[in-house]
Amino acid sequence: MQKKSGKETRILFVTSNPHKFSEAERILNEYGISIARFPTRYPEVRADECGAVASAAASELYRKLKQPLILEDAGLFIKALNGFPGAYSAWAQGKIGNRGVLNLMKGTAGRHAEFKSVYAFAKDGRIELFEGVCKGKIAHAEAGKYGFGYDPIFVPDEGTGKTFAQDPETKERVSHRRKALVKLAKYLKKLKGDW
Amino acid sequence: MQKKSGKETRILFVTSNPHKFSEAERILNEYGISIARFPTRYPEVRADECGAVASAAASELYRKLKQPLILEDAGLFIKALNGFPGAYSAWAQGKIGNRGVLNLMKGTAGRHAEFKSVYAFAKDGRIELFEGVCKGKIAHAEAGKYGFGYDPIFVPDEGTGKTFAQDPETKERVSHRRKALVKLAKYLKKLKGDW
Repeated sequence: MQKKSGKETRILFVTSNPHKFSEAERILNEYGISIARFPTRYPEVRADECGAVASAAASELYRKLKQPLILEDAGLFIKALNGFPGAYSAWAQGKIGNRGVLNLMKGTAGRHAEFKSVYAFAKDGRIELFEGVCKGKIAHAEAGKYGFGYDPIFVPDEGTGKTFAQDPETKERVSHRRKALVKLAKYLKKLKGDW
Repeated sequence: MQKKSGKETRILFVTSNPHKFSEAERILNEYGISIARFPTRYPEVRADECGAVASAAASELYRKLKQPLILEDAGLFIKALNGFPGAYSAWAQGKIGNRGVLNLMKGTAGRHAEFKSVYAFAKDGRIELFEGVCKGKIAHAEAGKYGFGYDPIFVPDEGTGKTFAQDPETKERVSHRRKALVKLAKYLKKLKGDW
């Protein structure tokens, strides 16, 4: 389906998460870009922004692998909690879970939140970042069985009032990760395999 | 008071926190060790253990500074919250504060917690770690005006039932940081200035 020059290098997607890889592969394929999975964990910096985490990791991995690569960092930023759990979302999910987040929301003003995803692309030691944002609200209780992490408590503004975990079709369409991936895909398409 | 050889190198304490420096200076001086403050921020890794954070930062800084140095990482580990806020304590304090932690404790079983402090000492590219632990409980409400961070909600087991913020004398005596510093001081004393 996609046209390739003989000397095109496959971009590595560095991730230990096979679901993240499948999603990226599917979306990038729609733009004629194919990627290879490089399944590893890597050190991450303590930083309040997903962009800073992704950028630092991509630089470090590029230094080691010397190949064009992408990786992603994401988080849920809750306005009434000053952006908590933010860039530490995966960690906080493991510690306090959705129940903990719902407890923290008690008595706070407003339930606005946003999911952010940042993809970093490293090539020749340079890093490009692509951010996707999905705005929404924190539900008053967990609902739904699809997805993972904070999906049962996140209701996207662009949806039907259901959580990501209740409505995976909406998630697929409006997610932060898809938005970031589409930006990345358009950028890569313009490079025409020159990486 | 302390005997020094002419060529002894002053150990750098890398910290952006002047209070941390004063405390360390006072305790290390009791053991005849003098330090110099190197006031800078440095990148920290995302890790669940203060030892991992301190060790990675000390390695990296030693590579740059090529001088014997110490630095510290600390956290509050709450048992009923699976160790939250742990190695991200300073960050979580800024986001959700003590009120947030008290909310998270509602309905949990038990209020056991411990403060941990890890000092890292880097010399010739080798890292030694010194850990201090102070066990206690999370109070049901904030109390006291001394100290900072989680002090108003932490009641040490070795104390009089008051929070660190109510009873700074007890804190001075039993704190995680003092325990770690005393271990470090004893180790450094044995080196007799050979660093």
